[in-house]
Amino acid sequence: MTLPDPLPASPGEPGQPALAQDFLARLADVIESRKPANGGDPGQSYVARLFAKGVDAMLKKVGEEATETVMAAKDGVPEKVVYEVADLWFHSMIVLAQFGLRPADVLAELARREGLSGLQEFAQRPLAPPDPRG
Amino acid sequence: MTLPDPLPASPGEPGQPALAQDFLARLADVIESRKPANGGDPGQSYVARLFAKGVDAMLKKVGEEATETVMAAKDGVPEKVVYEVADLWFHSMIVLAQFGLRPADVLAELARREGLSGLQEFAQRPLAPPDPRG
Amino acid sequence: MTLPDPLPASPGEPGQPALAQDFLARLADVIESRKPANGGDPGQSYVARLFAKGVDAMLKKVGEEATETVMAAKDGVPEKVVYEVADLWFHSMIVLAQFGLRPADVLAELARREGLSGLQEFAQRPLAPPDPRG
Amino acid sequence: MTLPDPLPASPGEPGQPALAQDFLARLADVIESRKPANGGDPGQSYVARLFAKGVDAMLKKVGEEATETVMAAKDGVPEKVVYEVADLWFHSMIVLAQFGLRPADVLAELARREGLSGLQEFAQRPLAPPDPRG
Repeated sequence: MTLPDPLPASPGEPGQPALAQDFLARLADVIESRKPANGGDPGQSYVARLFAKGVDAMLKKVGEEATETVMAAKDGVPEKVVYEVADLWFHSMIVLAQFGLRPADVLAELARREGLSGLQEFAQRPLAPPDPRG
Repeated sequence: MTLPDPLPASPGEPGQPALAQDFLARLADVIESRKPANGGDPGQSYVARLFAKGVDAMLKKVGEEATETVMAAKDGVPEKVVYEVADLWFHSMIVLAQFGLRPADVLAELARREGLSGLQEFAQRPLAPPDPRG
Repeated sequence: MTLPDPLPASPGEPGQPALAQDFLARLADVIESRKPANGGDPGQSYVARLFAKGVDAMLKKVGEEATETVMAAKDGVPEKVVYEVADLWFHSMIVLAQFGLRPADVLAELARREGLSGLQEFAQRPLAPPDPRG
Repeated sequence: MTLPDPLPASPGEPGQPALAQDFLARLADVIESRKPANGGDPGQSYVARLFAKGVDAMLKKVGEEATETVMAAKDGVPEKVVYEVADLWFHSMIVLAQFGLRPADVLAELARREGLSGLQEFAQRPLAPPDPRG
């Protein structure tokens, strides 16, 4: 896949390790910033280009990356599986952004159906600064 | 989708809220525990059943859930999109487990390609206890 | 896949071997007859059941069968490839029927883009009795 | 999709209409001729390019075209459905060719499972000159 735009360096918080949910939230912030309405430039950014093309372009990528995940797994090469699942999750996150959704919504849904009592609280916790999309 | 097995309630750690734990790592631990080799019972657990059936059964689900994500997005209903992306990520995680991989490997791949300097540290950090699979 | 309903035996036409008939057109006729509006019984017929469930159920099968085609090809087993492509084409034909389309429309599209001068005639030729759907 | 190479004009046979199975057989012949081993030129021909790239490139297209079929159907636009199903069948035929298979094998499988007595004979009939692939 065309490499997406680099993320700005993390500010870092001493003594506090990063969590998966925080990572996904930061990645979602970057994706959000690539929307043309937020200043993303389709000439510079792969993600901005997908937003400019619209939902069908994103969904086509989800279908493609799912197929490539299947092929990588059939090849039995773990490195390829990781690479393709990363592509699949990344493009899923662009679809989420297109609908004003966040990775936290997906994790909350997973937590909900798993009945993770302790994680319910996590699921309701804001993972990112208040979203200007309202 | 058939609802996967409930996760055991979080044991909780005094002074440390559940939200400080890594949700995806915990979910991966539960998936790992459902492998028949780890005591998962295909008669009781949807995930154990997929492991017992083998990689093709998992990959078929990945293809299915990608298709359902596409349909949900075409319907334009955010709640459906969240539901189907959750299914897609969940089944991707089962494929990861099949190959001895963790969600952290996927996040590390995303961090690597994003050039997330601050998150590199996260990416290298173990998100789960040392994996006996080596 | 659940085996679709058997086709009625070919009535046969004296002096004209079955092979001179158009197989896909006949299969499409059978699919058409399985629409509940045409008397198809969801309790008896797999195809009628798909029509009763609606377009999402058919599309889900198209996604599934495409994934299974990919897996069969990765396995490198020709018999499986034939089996899965047959499933894929069969379910595509149900989608076509859902939209009042015929396999001839697909072949005409293929002929058109191939610039098949001799086959253009074929492409315009009715492969089935006039369709009352207009 | 990139338009495949034009087919040579049909020799035509007076008084005998083309059949779907004959059309598919001729299209398969053209696909077969695009294999690099048969003189296909990847610099000139889209199909030759797919053969040169190998089976993963073809399978990726099958996954893509299945996704696009799903999207076209969700859009509810019959012309798009025809276009995408044509793409899907066309790329399926390239996969068949990769495995030394013919569309007749798929039609025979469909006939077999349908129990089309009269069409069994059709299914066994050679639709193309003897295949040198053996």
